[in-house]
Amino acid sequence: MSKTAEILCVGTEILLGNITNTNATFLSQELSALGFNVFHHTVVGDNGGRLAEAVDHALARSDLVITTGGLGPTYDDLTKQTVAAALGLEMELHQDILDDLIARWERRGQVMPKNNEQQAWFPKGCTIIPNDWGTAPSCAIEKDGRTVIMLPGPPREMKNIWTRYVVPYLSQKQDEVLVSRYCRVVNIGESALEIRLYDLLKNSVNPTVAPYAGGGETMLRVTAKARTKEEAFAMTVPVVQAIADECGDDLYAVDRDSMEQVVSDLLRELGFTVSVCESITGGLIAGRITSLPGSSDLFECGFVTYSNRIKQAVAGVPAETLEQYTEISAETAAAMAEGTLARSGSSVALAVTGVAGPDDLPYAEAGTVYVGLAGPLGTRAYRLEMLRSRDRNYTRNLACVKALDALRRYLLEIKRG
Amino acid sequence: MSKTAEILCVGTEILLGNITNTNATFLSQELSALGFNVFHHTVVGDNGGRLAEAVDHALARSDLVITTGGLGPTYDDLTKQTVAAALGLEMELHQDILDDLIARWERRGQVMPKNNEQQAWFPKGCTIIPNDWGTAPSCAIEKDGRTVIMLPGPPREMKNIWTRYVVPYLSQKQDEVLVSRYCRVVNIGESALEIRLYDLLKNSVNPTVAPYAGGGETMLRVTAKARTKEEAFAMTVPVVQAIADECGDDLYAVDRDSMEQVVSDLLRELGFTVSVCESITGGLIAGRITSLPGSSDLFECGFVTYSNRIKQAVAGVPAETLEQYTEISAETAAAMAEGTLARSGSSVALAVTGVAGPDDLPYAEAGTVYVGLAGPLGTRAYRLEMLRSRDRNYTRNLACVKALDALRRYLLEIKRG
Repeated sequence: MSKTAEILCVGTEILLGNITNTNATFLSQELSALGFNVFHHTVVGDNGGRLAEAVDHALARSDLVITTGGLGPTYDDLTKQTVAAALGLEMELHQDILDDLIARWERRGQVMPKNNEQQAWFPKGCTIIPNDWGTAPSCAIEKDGRTVIMLPGPPREMKNIWTRYVVPYLSQKQDEVLVSRYCRVVNIGESALEIRLYDLLKNSVNPTVAPYAGGGETMLRVTAKARTKEEAFAMTVPVVQAIADECGDDLYAVDRDSMEQVVSDLLRELGFTVSVCESITGGLIAGRITSLPGSSDLFECGFVTYSNRIKQAVAGVPAETLEQYTEISAETAAAMAEGTLARSGSSVALAVTGVAGPDDLPYAEAGTVYVGLAGPLGTRAYRLEMLRSRDRNYTRNLACVKALDALRRYLLEIKRG
Repeated sequence: MSKTAEILCVGTEILLGNITNTNATFLSQELSALGFNVFHHTVVGDNGGRLAEAVDHALARSDLVITTGGLGPTYDDLTKQTVAAALGLEMELHQDILDDLIARWERRGQVMPKNNEQQAWFPKGCTIIPNDWGTAPSCAIEKDGRTVIMLPGPPREMKNIWTRYVVPYLSQKQDEVLVSRYCRVVNIGESALEIRLYDLLKNSVNPTVAPYAGGGETMLRVTAKARTKEEAFAMTVPVVQAIADECGDDLYAVDRDSMEQVVSDLLRELGFTVSVCESITGGLIAGRITSLPGSSDLFECGFVTYSNRIKQAVAGVPAETLEQYTEISAETAAAMAEGTLARSGSSVALAVTGVAGPDDLPYAEAGTVYVGLAGPLGTRAYRLEMLRSRDRNYTRNLACVKALDALRRYLLEIKRG
């Protein structure tokens, strides 16, 4: 019998629309994957009365209540004391946490402001959950068959605490485990994929298969439920295989986080280094590759050649190429890649040039993007298939994914000999 | 006296985390701008009992309830009948809407499925709101001093109906408007800022002042309420001035979106171009500057010099500097900036080098970052004050903000002569 869960987010900034409640999205996905039925999201501001009412409602109807926000050091951070009051619990000081807070401030050469002390007060009898990414520790309380877990509001802290501490804590309470696997697909849109995988999607029960689109790719989540992790994993295998058979090389990753991760794996496997030369993406491709720990083994050099003058001076693009074909051309992309390969001394070079918009150029529409590759297979350059858009950031991010995908296919070809 | 509003979103797909509730964000912003106090967001699934409970709670505590979702043609679209029942209203068929629906289907050469008929049933006495972008019309009901407005779930339909029909409908009911202004502060944390601005924050009523932290900065929102926009804006002026007096140059922006926006404004004002040389941030600074439309006027060239070999070959850092001081040093940051200035021909150059982690280097801890600047004021380089962290992405993003802030201060000094 599945337990019910409720997500209660505390923060006036959400009610004002200053931030979108992505915490609720993340927690909903995670709780569903753990086998909980999420029946309510609630958001209230930093207001004692309304928070107390929301906590009462949540405790009356849900087995598990996850709160986010209101754990900070300021007078309007009220979550812990409000939950404690609703459960009839007193607050108590944890001297070790207070000492740790004071020490943190001292290490920065500062005296802890008095108001920070409240971060060391917790409902009596709770389980403290460490916060390795911020100052406010979290906590979990169990009482009368109800569990309340209080997490900080900043998504980075919340997600890290969730993954490291809360998932193991909740998993031990469930008699079934869920295993989810993620299949990432490029070049096939969500609805086209849904048509091609119709039977798999429509009739999926255990494992379930659900598609998500975003960031220029489509993700399929395959989730199986069983008594053990091993059993659940085994149930996903034929489903993942069926997806692989249908998608071929457009399925770029299973159980890997991102395109840059897959490209980095391939580079490492081949013993290659890469350099990039970016115009339209303005450094974002380099930024993605170097986001991964250990990327300094693979990535040596990036050029952001935004002007034509710099395309010549830095990447060695011939003036005639720019004159004859303009900077928005396969010829320029090829020259950028060749110049970058020569000047960086890396194994392979990736180049990208295009029009981000919102405005068109006289000779090329916003959303036009060319990619260039240079390396052991020789030089290649072509126009990327992009969805037409005047949204600058959308186009830049899509160009990143598609350019990295072009590099992935180039590397795959080398790997396969 | 401001009225209270509540946003009630209906849809199991939100509770599963399949979609993020951006409707709530949009409606919160819009309602705040119209002078409503949004005190609750609630999400429930397509379930009659839980929806009825949520509607009861909402009607008991809010003057205005906006619902999204549950207006479609299928058996689990329950919003209209549930709201009607909660208000003690019967449903009635609007024959003209039914005829229109049938005609729509006929124009597509199809017979309307029977279940679509429910889209023509509405609570008795409601005001119909046309849906020019989809099949499900919306409606508004007023009863016993409460107003309920029911909107469709798809964001495009919802936003269009909101803007064209609901805003005029609600504006005529409001006699006050809100104006919010955003003050962005670096180098002063949220709790330190709260102490320094204690009186302003604690006693703020109209305008209200609220702090938010995130992404290496603190934002103060100043919101005033008055009968006209002009009057409300005028009320914010002395408060923003008080914040400026307290924060000095640490207040980097008022009513501007981001650090890169402020830096770009300064560059444009000075008629400058900028180049960057990035190690730890791996292209992210270039990526931020070029995220802005028109950045090609300001930004020409970026280097991502990840290896020491490339720091020498591309940015011209002397081998002796790297040997004597290592690449994690003010000396190397200075040499990177000078080399980039010389090779790019731009007015000013920004360089950044450091250890992103998660692992330390033998000679420098993760989170150690140096910035270098070269330009009309000569070369400067120093260690950035960073919060110690092993989170690679956190450190990289904080380094971006702090490095851009260093450039901002350099440009400000030039501007002030």
